[in-house]
Amino acid sequence: MSQAGTSGGGFQLTEALRDSPFMRACRREQVPYTPVWLMRQAGRYMKEYRDVRARYSFLEMCKQPEVASEVTVYAAHRLGVDAAIIFADILLIIEPMGLDLEFAKGEGPVIHNPVRTAADVDRVREVEDVSALDYVYEAVRITRRELRHDIPLIGFCGAPFTLASYICEGGGSKNYLHTKRLMYTDPGAWHALMSKIARALSQYLNAQVEAGAQAVQIFDSWVGALSPDDYREYVLPHTREVIEGVTPGVPVIHFGTNTATLLELMKEAGGDVIGLDWRVRLDEAWARLGDVAVQGNFDSVALFTTPEVVRRRAKDVLDRAANRPGHIFNLGHGILPETPVENVVALVEAVHELSAR
Amino acid sequence: MSQAGTSGGGFQLTEALRDSPFMRACRREQVPYTPVWLMRQAGRYMKEYRDVRARYSFLEMCKQPEVASEVTVYAAHRLGVDAAIIFADILLIIEPMGLDLEFAKGEGPVIHNPVRTAADVDRVREVEDVSALDYVYEAVRITRRELRHDIPLIGFCGAPFTLASYICEGGGSKNYLHTKRLMYTDPGAWHALMSKIARALSQYLNAQVEAGAQAVQIFDSWVGALSPDDYREYVLPHTREVIEGVTPGVPVIHFGTNTATLLELMKEAGGDVIGLDWRVRLDEAWARLGDVAVQGNFDSVALFTTPEVVRRRAKDVLDRAANRPGHIFNLGHGILPETPVENVVALVEAVHELSAR
Repeated sequence: MSQAGTSGGGFQLTEALRDSPFMRACRREQVPYTPVWLMRQAGRYMKEYRDVRARYSFLEMCKQPEVASEVTVYAAHRLGVDAAIIFADILLIIEPMGLDLEFAKGEGPVIHNPVRTAADVDRVREVEDVSALDYVYEAVRITRRELRHDIPLIGFCGAPFTLASYICEGGGSKNYLHTKRLMYTDPGAWHALMSKIARALSQYLNAQVEAGAQAVQIFDSWVGALSPDDYREYVLPHTREVIEGVTPGVPVIHFGTNTATLLELMKEAGGDVIGLDWRVRLDEAWARLGDVAVQGNFDSVALFTTPEVVRRRAKDVLDRAANRPGHIFNLGHGILPETPVENVVALVEAVHELSAR
Repeated sequence: MSQAGTSGGGFQLTEALRDSPFMRACRREQVPYTPVWLMRQAGRYMKEYRDVRARYSFLEMCKQPEVASEVTVYAAHRLGVDAAIIFADILLIIEPMGLDLEFAKGEGPVIHNPVRTAADVDRVREVEDVSALDYVYEAVRITRRELRHDIPLIGFCGAPFTLASYICEGGGSKNYLHTKRLMYTDPGAWHALMSKIARALSQYLNAQVEAGAQAVQIFDSWVGALSPDDYREYVLPHTREVIEGVTPGVPVIHFGTNTATLLELMKEAGGDVIGLDWRVRLDEAWARLGDVAVQGNFDSVALFTTPEVVRRRAKDVLDRAANRPGHIFNLGHGILPETPVENVVALVEAVHELSAR
């Protein structure tokens, strides 16, 4: 079987990748130990990342494939995790949609032309093809070459709601006022916006798969701001469209935070693996979800303690998973910038040791 | 029966207050219509409030009983709600504990000497008596006199966890890093801090009751940052202590946000009424809770729409409550500063009309 991503013919897997603990867990097969990777594992908490970051702006890092690949590969090898995730940002896709994106210093993302009305929605461009993001696929290709041959590489995108929330708010938000106002007062415009986003996303994910990603994750990081009824009406059909458009055979991880009341609906929208934050008990959430794999659910903030506390709390998560096939260990959300690296390393080691079958 | 609060002898109720829809709902008795009040109903969204606020700093407003009373009474009468809540701030109690509190312009609360270590906890003062907050009790007395005689007045405090989070972080927070670090790495110091807070709170609530409040609400606004197991271990005993210390017969409303996985534990900690944010379906959450009253669960952000949308969404909440005795209509969290007043008025009217038995 050819190296994944070199054929240009969709999704192919080497044996080493297909049999890796991460890919086996996505398929809910038996594993020798619980695979673990960590959201934002290539990030500011790591000195080597900060050294690279000092030389480039955040967007430059995303857009220079060698740089994006370097931090991706370094973090995965340094931590000894069971999967890498391509270094990129969920907002890159909104640039070809005509949104004016900037990462302002210390402020996070700013979108200078936010979408607030039906007329604004009309002005959002349909992404006819996703070649504007060629730099991401090139980073995937380089990373797949440089990464240990048995470590799967995860591609990703933001989910339609989370992207729409940035597009409507013009950046991050606490209350999602503009987003919900559009949603509640002009459902037609809302659905039109979500459709434009969704159509771009499947293409974008599949281009990452074709370039060499073995799995994809859909980040609906802020969807927990919604009630279940709003999720069902305003979000679910669009997320489903994205997931149904992913190349068959590629595992999809469907992730959100603050989703305790949305989990069944997220499963209904789709995904082979459902992300769990730290607010749910893993066993209870998994019982509600049924026949699907799960990823999570260690509290990122518990990494600000000691290796002993980290180990004890990792054991709590593993005990609730009880070696049931289909658990990928991860944080409930991303690694925070000031996290001590030694505790992250201790976490990965603890998961591998404590979960060895 | 004497006017509540004038006797100095604890909790007494006039007939008009005892039979008010709000008090009946707290006791899960039949009501002529669903009572409604709104968290932060006396707030910045209201022009009359801003006019008063322009003349005083926020802390000055809290500490001048006539001013605090004026905004409390005005908002309740203007909106036609079924209960008033005394204008004050959950952080006032931390001043007599030796914390240096400031409301910095545009930044929210700042505590200049945050608590991060066991030695810091030792320096936190036990509040021997709560007379430092006499200005609150005086505001309650004035308000009870000025308020319509059949409108109950709610006293309140922050819950131990939410107060501890401000004390540890030195202000508001996104990730509760310092709070959780203390909790996870030095449980002894954590419990000592929570105990000091809890001991102050029951006294504080009872002094408000004695001054004329008919019910009390405990705001655990940020407790949703915790997992159920952490809540049980680090929070529940302390909240229970506060609630058990409240004068018998006084209804206690136990409120939090983001608590979908904590509701049963919050009920275990205590309260006659459990607050529900907008992320849970009211009927499902109530079924889980069982024999207790509930308060909520309208999404505050839906007030940024039109009176028609507000009315339709109010009906959704009321339909799920299905006239079961023991529902107090409220928002899932407080009214946001830019909320259009006409939509707030429309909400109160809609609740009264649509719920008339």
